[in-house]
Amino acid sequence: MIPKSHPRYESLMIRKNLVKGFKDGFVAPEGLIAHGRGEAFDYLVGEKTIPMAEKAEKASAAYLLKAKNPVISVNGNTAALVRDEIIKLSRILPAKIEINLFHRTDERINKIVEMFKGVDVLGEKTDAKIAGIEHHRGLCCKEGIFSSDVVLVMLEDGDRAKALVDMKKTVIAVDLNPLSRTSLTANVTVVDNITRALKNITKYCEILRNNKAEIDEAIKNFDNRGNIDEVLKYISKRLEELKW
Amino acid sequence: MIPKSHPRYESLMIRKNLVKGFKDGFVAPEGLIAHGRGEAFDYLVGEKTIPMAEKAEKASAAYLLKAKNPVISVNGNTAALVRDEIIKLSRILPAKIEINLFHRTDERINKIVEMFKGVDVLGEKTDAKIAGIEHHRGLCCKEGIFSSDVVLVMLEDGDRAKALVDMKKTVIAVDLNPLSRTSLTANVTVVDNITRALKNITKYCEILRNNKAEIDEAIKNFDNRGNIDEVLKYISKRLEELKW
Repeated sequence: MIPKSHPRYESLMIRKNLVKGFKDGFVAPEGLIAHGRGEAFDYLVGEKTIPMAEKAEKASAAYLLKAKNPVISVNGNTAALVRDEIIKLSRILPAKIEINLFHRTDERINKIVEMFKGVDVLGEKTDAKIAGIEHHRGLCCKEGIFSSDVVLVMLEDGDRAKALVDMKKTVIAVDLNPLSRTSLTANVTVVDNITRALKNITKYCEILRNNKAEIDEAIKNFDNRGNIDEVLKYISKRLEELKW
Repeated sequence: MIPKSHPRYESLMIRKNLVKGFKDGFVAPEGLIAHGRGEAFDYLVGEKTIPMAEKAEKASAAYLLKAKNPVISVNGNTAALVRDEIIKLSRILPAKIEINLFHRTDERINKIVEMFKGVDVLGEKTDAKIAGIEHHRGLCCKEGIFSSDVVLVMLEDGDRAKALVDMKKTVIAVDLNPLSRTSLTANVTVVDNITRALKNITKYCEILRNNKAEIDEAIKNFDNRGNIDEVLKYISKRLEELKW
């Protein structure tokens, strides 16, 4: 039992949920390692939503609201950590949900489908490929990711993020490492914990949904490259201040 | 297969060895997450031994050489990644090796004992406790960690590191997170990947072993607090330069 008073309670509870998902068989061992990398970067931003992340979350909401066929891509880690938030966001937009695993096995797919019972999800069967991505890693659904114009990926592999951009999709990536290949490739990079990011993107969808002018404004005002530079500056400054 | 030309070959091979140790049953799921955190911080220092780490490695060698009963504490991750280096260092000093798991189970202990077959290792049976640490996490050996004067811990839990310091032992910690509780508690904090750190500590043991004056000098010249501050500055500066 982790006491609520523990200074890192939130982070430890998130970790606990992930290890549970791992023991239940739908989070991959590599997903645990990836989560650890995320924990380290979350620590560096102070385990809170920094202003640059909030800005990217607003832009994400704008792109998703403007999309013709937005898709939320789900993997083992996101199913374990933000299933409810994914469902909520998909209903507000609306957007399709597609289970899309880097380490795809029937067992893991079925377990994640089971987790989304009662909700329409794509990805159990695939009928298309992400161009340039070999093997199981490239499988996807024609009516989902393949034909989407805006894709929200969280904790995504760098090669796949790039392949989606090459397919001319607008890629929104939630990734705590501001320098990962995914972060540097995406059109919108949200450097935030997925538990906080999804809540904020959903919040901005509710704020912006009926205001076309503000949606266009949020997109026009967002410069991903400049925003990532600001994130790096923020972390760098924070490290200077953290000294003891 | 990871090609040797891959820019992150070393890191990916280390990860592969760890996942193997996990599949073999002696690395804990939490060990995978911890490794991910390490990967992130290793990325921040540039996946190489930075000057402050080298300095701490020299001081570590000096403390270990000067010790009456030095002990190298081994867990699942270190057994998976640096078994050979641990054995080599233990022979040069000489130092005892004690298997000391945070998530202790008989199965994991037995598998790690098996990995060190032919080498004297403590920890299979325990007959003492680290003061203030509850449950299995506090178990240790009287002739090992309990009576040691200098302990080398790698990827150690913060509570345990603090308990060892409270027992008046000199704690040398290898930990890539310069701000972890372990790093801030230890007497000597080596912010380096364990694969590089152990090789360097062993190198300095060979250099210093017959030179008492140089050993005393290395200890006298080492200021852990100041060194960690330098590490933070180094990472901070590097992040500024990494911008694209």
